[in-house]
Amino acid sequence: MKFTYTGIEVRDLDRAIEFYTKGLGMTLEGRGKIAATKGEVAGLRSKGSKQILELNWYPRRRYRAGSELDHLAFDVGDGDVETEIERLLTMGATRARPTEVRPKYIVGFVKDPDGVWLELYKARK
Amino acid sequence: MKFTYTGIEVRDLDRAIEFYTKGLGMTLEGRGKIAATKGEVAGLRSKGSKQILELNWYPRRRYRAGSELDHLAFDVGDGDVETEIERLLTMGATRARPTEVRPKYIVGFVKDPDGVWLELYKARK
Repeated sequence: MKFTYTGIEVRDLDRAIEFYTKGLGMTLEGRGKIAATKGEVAGLRSKGSKQILELNWYPRRRYRAGSELDHLAFDVGDGDVETEIERLLTMGATRARPTEVRPKYIVGFVKDPDGVWLELYKARK
Repeated sequence: MKFTYTGIEVRDLDRAIEFYTKGLGMTLEGRGKIAATKGEVAGLRSKGSKQILELNWYPRRRYRAGSELDHLAFDVGDGDVETEIERLLTMGATRARPTEVRPKYIVGFVKDPDGVWLELYKARK
């Protein structure tokens, strides 16, 4: 299990990319559409760091103060997404979305005991 | 300028440390009190990753849904905290707290155009 990135919600993806690249010197690593949410994401990284900041944009979502943190992501590594989620449910987590098989990843979401959304994912072989 | 960690707010620091260490396999790197906020923080890291998750606890704060994201932190490196903040203010950021000289760091906060709190900091020589 490895913490790999932080995803924040943004109202305007172009504006956010501009702010984090020109304002904070980050490099745009990639940008793409997500079929499961009909949204769009961009990944950014600082020079000399593996720490990824993901910008998440969703269509027709009513953005509100307090929805800035989209999710923290964990790669389950050799583990199994659903098994890990069931284990976390016994430790105070609650299920946030059903585990889905997406084209490249198996992806599940829980909320931690404070309500933070956690994504557990595994690349499909 | 380098993105170095993500800070989330927690209601119960012991519970959150237990969840992220035992539940998600992270290692507790350190824990300490912050004089400026009278709060307490803990830093966690996954094995094989430099990505830090900071758990932030504040006394007497009314925790609410939507305050999970405390801040994203950037080390200004060779730059100057206040100069960088003034530059970001011209790019759509707003000031969130005055820049403070703390015992070990100079620390300032802005909100990005989406309202995300960003900490800019520099270690004092």
